[in-house]
Amino acid sequence: MTDSLRLSVVPDIPEIGPGDDLPGLLAERVPDGPGILVVAQKVVSKAEGRVVRLADVVPGERAIQVAKAVEKDPRQVELILRESRRIVRQVPGVLITETHHGLICANSGVDLSNSPGEETAVLLPLDPDASAERIRARLGPRRGVIVTDTFGRPWREGFVDVAIGVAGLAPLRDFTGETDLEGRELQVTVMALADQLATAAGILMEKSAGRPAVWIEGIEPVGTGGLADLLRDPDRDLFR
Amino acid sequence: MTDSLRLSVVPDIPEIGPGDDLPGLLAERVPDGPGILVVAQKVVSKAEGRVVRLADVVPGERAIQVAKAVEKDPRQVELILRESRRIVRQVPGVLITETHHGLICANSGVDLSNSPGEETAVLLPLDPDASAERIRARLGPRRGVIVTDTFGRPWREGFVDVAIGVAGLAPLRDFTGETDLEGRELQVTVMALADQLATAAGILMEKSAGRPAVWIEGIEPVGTGGLADLLRDPDRDLFR
Repeated sequence: MTDSLRLSVVPDIPEIGPGDDLPGLLAERVPDGPGILVVAQKVVSKAEGRVVRLADVVPGERAIQVAKAVEKDPRQVELILRESRRIVRQVPGVLITETHHGLICANSGVDLSNSPGEETAVLLPLDPDASAERIRARLGPRRGVIVTDTFGRPWREGFVDVAIGVAGLAPLRDFTGETDLEGRELQVTVMALADQLATAAGILMEKSAGRPAVWIEGIEPVGTGGLADLLRDPDRDLFR
Repeated sequence: MTDSLRLSVVPDIPEIGPGDDLPGLLAERVPDGPGILVVAQKVVSKAEGRVVRLADVVPGERAIQVAKAVEKDPRQVELILRESRRIVRQVPGVLITETHHGLICANSGVDLSNSPGEETAVLLPLDPDASAERIRARLGPRRGVIVTDTFGRPWREGFVDVAIGVAGLAPLRDFTGETDLEGRELQVTVMALADQLATAAGILMEKSAGRPAVWIEGIEPVGTGGLADLLRDPDRDLFR
């Protein structure tokens, strides 16, 4: 296990639009050597064309009803419902859903952007593990990729970034069977490594500054896996 | 805003026991310059004598009942209930409570240690902000301190470290009113900086290796605050 980590912003990433070769842009800018690249969902979604003009969205009846209850734009709610399996909680101002990926988060991860003259919504990638893998494939061996989004949490104030897509590393780190310094078996056994890395990178991803990617050195990516590893089985979840 | 962060394990921290001068031990080992020191709760609690021999705990009637329902040691449950305001969820194998500090977590943060011949429980610090402040006072200016514990989360697998005590920095970072590169106002406005730092440090705090403290350089601690800033007002929480 390493004694230090270095996180650095990947420099000079231009504004990303549909069809841009984001994996190539990132691969050119990431330093040599092993490490893990953390990329914010928004640029991934934009490169993949997951952007919708709100003016083109016709809300259905259910979206209109839910929009009234949660006091949101019915066109945004239409997109949120299309991106979701079910509503988890709804109150005025808040709509928490479970996405088709199994993520539980506000607004199915649909972000509104209010450019003058054109309101758009950015949706989550269709398959964030595949998005991560497309980037990883361009980085070469001994390098992992995590795609992140910024989520709120029950009970605690403030947002943190978490992993929504993973390629080239095991998202969980299992300490089961290891013992502590005094020979006692560890109680807390599985750490959410991909979320730890996502959250750490989020410290440098200042939201206003066009810094959508962070390179983490000092940790060798090990194993394989994807988002499914990070999602709790509903049968074992007490807060559905 | 900084472009890079460096996290490093604070070296050579000995096994900590009641009455040890943990703030002094840490201050001797932390490098010069500004930064934020992240310290795992367990060593803080041990130094503060928050350790109980299970053999000395007499479970009350309620603890015996709850212990049966959750299939845990009634003496441990007695401690969990003493450390809590209320039970949030209970099923076989899981007891989630709200602590007197307002933290919602498994087992009120009470950790069992099974040394041969002496079973002990380590409780959370009575006032984790005060614990952080005692350490911060020994580090001098431009240095912040975060005390962390390892929590599970709804909906997601794996544990992450979060802040339970803060001194010398504002736990939340508010981007309200800032605009992105295209001049749009940001939607996600408040990041949980203390939790981001706690979680990041957790990557290096391998649980089996006696590495209870991590020093983070590249970020200047700004502002003041404490755990209360990180706890959501119950009226605004949908998952109580």
